[in-house]
Amino acid sequence: MIGAGLIGGSLLRAAEKAGRTVWGSCASAETARQAADDGFDVGTDTDTALARASAADALVVLAVPLPALPGVLGRVDRIAPTCRLTDAVSVKVATAGAVHRYAPRVRYVGGHPMAGTAESGWAAGQAGLFTDAAWVVAADDGLDTEVWADAAELAWACGARVVPAAATDHDLAVAKVSHLPHLFAAVLAAVGAAGEGPEHDALALSLAASSFADGTRVAGTRPELVLAMCEGNRDALLAAVDDALGRLGAMRGALASTGGLAATVHAGHAGRQQFLAARTPPGVRLPRTPLSLKDLRTLGHQGHVLLGWA
Amino acid sequence: MIGAGLIGGSLLRAAEKAGRTVWGSCASAETARQAADDGFDVGTDTDTALARASAADALVVLAVPLPALPGVLGRVDRIAPTCRLTDAVSVKVATAGAVHRYAPRVRYVGGHPMAGTAESGWAAGQAGLFTDAAWVVAADDGLDTEVWADAAELAWACGARVVPAAATDHDLAVAKVSHLPHLFAAVLAAVGAAGEGPEHDALALSLAASSFADGTRVAGTRPELVLAMCEGNRDALLAAVDDALGRLGAMRGALASTGGLAATVHAGHAGRQQFLAARTPPGVRLPRTPLSLKDLRTLGHQGHVLLGWA
Repeated sequence: MIGAGLIGGSLLRAAEKAGRTVWGSCASAETARQAADDGFDVGTDTDTALARASAADALVVLAVPLPALPGVLGRVDRIAPTCRLTDAVSVKVATAGAVHRYAPRVRYVGGHPMAGTAESGWAAGQAGLFTDAAWVVAADDGLDTEVWADAAELAWACGARVVPAAATDHDLAVAKVSHLPHLFAAVLAAVGAAGEGPEHDALALSLAASSFADGTRVAGTRPELVLAMCEGNRDALLAAVDDALGRLGAMRGALASTGGLAATVHAGHAGRQQFLAARTPPGVRLPRTPLSLKDLRTLGHQGHVLLGWA
Repeated sequence: MIGAGLIGGSLLRAAEKAGRTVWGSCASAETARQAADDGFDVGTDTDTALARASAADALVVLAVPLPALPGVLGRVDRIAPTCRLTDAVSVKVATAGAVHRYAPRVRYVGGHPMAGTAESGWAAGQAGLFTDAAWVVAADDGLDTEVWADAAELAWACGARVVPAAATDHDLAVAKVSHLPHLFAAVLAAVGAAGEGPEHDALALSLAASSFADGTRVAGTRPELVLAMCEGNRDALLAAVDDALGRLGAMRGALASTGGLAATVHAGHAGRQQFLAARTPPGVRLPRTPLSLKDLRTLGHQGHVLLGWA
């Protein structure tokens, strides 16, 4: 495990609890000390951790922020150039691009456990963080299916449900359901707090109730986390923003011309119902036949989640 | 009380609990029967209720939907043409316009208790619905200050905190903090549920987590309620939508050109902090000197809430 913050630290705990042999490294001596105090084999020497992984043919997991990838991948390319590799970075196209550029010989299958809390760091980690969470495992053509199985088995060992998806489809999906909600929340909060004159601010906010509270909640997230997530997914996010702007523009036109908002409101109501219905996705067990990446992608598109081997 | 649904029914209960003599009427015989079964003097004969109010110089409260106003106000103009009148309709400019047109001789001061639940109807009502809620009492120049005091005292009797505001300022404020959040939620839900092809839908929604859940919650509100609220506030809502579209357009431009979202995200974070700070507004008690409507509006702009007489 390279990285021992909230995600890396939770993965170490969850995988060890599942009976795996785990070790790792992280950039911060303080974090390494906290992990060691909790009984984990975590230091600051990434090269040694990677050499051990190479010797054991172990699955290497990168749980570092996107900007740290080039440096870490350079080490991987030197120390464990053909290792089994997955990651927990929240965007998949940019991560795959970095792997292709900096460690082109590894057997890489991208991953994204969709879990988190408002906290960060080793101390915030917990073995149960991934229980019943969706965990995307990339399923693009050409991936090593043996490493795909490694990544899926890690997810299952951590209690998560695997959602197979192509990297571009993952990035577009999270742009829509995670990054766009953060930007909408930010704009809504700014509109509510800004009046025509200074004296209008207080009136609007003093009338704000639960619709405003819920709609702006994630605007309270630490800005640097939101920026790293959204800016790292620029192309997909632009597509999602343009979809939203198109719908808002049509709504604005209808309001200004006929005054009618029925199309917008009914489409939103239907979308919310679809979302609620999708909260209990059909679970599937995967037969132990040779994996078809195309079939896996189809399962993901259909909204299935994979619970383990059949 | 004209109307005995969620709001009218809760007002009847709260005012009676505060020791007021209350009676009312509503359009639905079934609702009237439910209210009568609960011991309230509520029938379906609006004219009789209004005649009794006229004789007693009682404060008449309209708690009916915006489209029902012309009919009800026509009755008021015939039966109690100069009565003390307030209302609980969610938009204030359109309501004042209807009063001016259909019952021009009444002594009208608009009101808007900012409370509600997802439920509707008499059975959903409760005496405590307005406890600590903001209750806007209109404070435009030229209003009858005696009726202003009647309306404020009703709000205080129901446990609410009075926010004085001009009708146009109220409508712009609720457009920003209530109606725009509903439209944002609708657009977000529609974007999340709509893929490029049918097979994309399920993938995005199966990755949706708490940011999407919170951002779309009010898209689950009954569409007819959202439409009545938003369409009745068209002019102010257009201003709020244009504010939001301007910010979204600037954000889209920054994302496409430099890829940077810092301005958007930091403004949103600051707005959310302002909102949280405004949740505990400074409470003020009003001296029993002659009321200045201008001073009342200033208090509202400053974010003060009125707790009662000094």
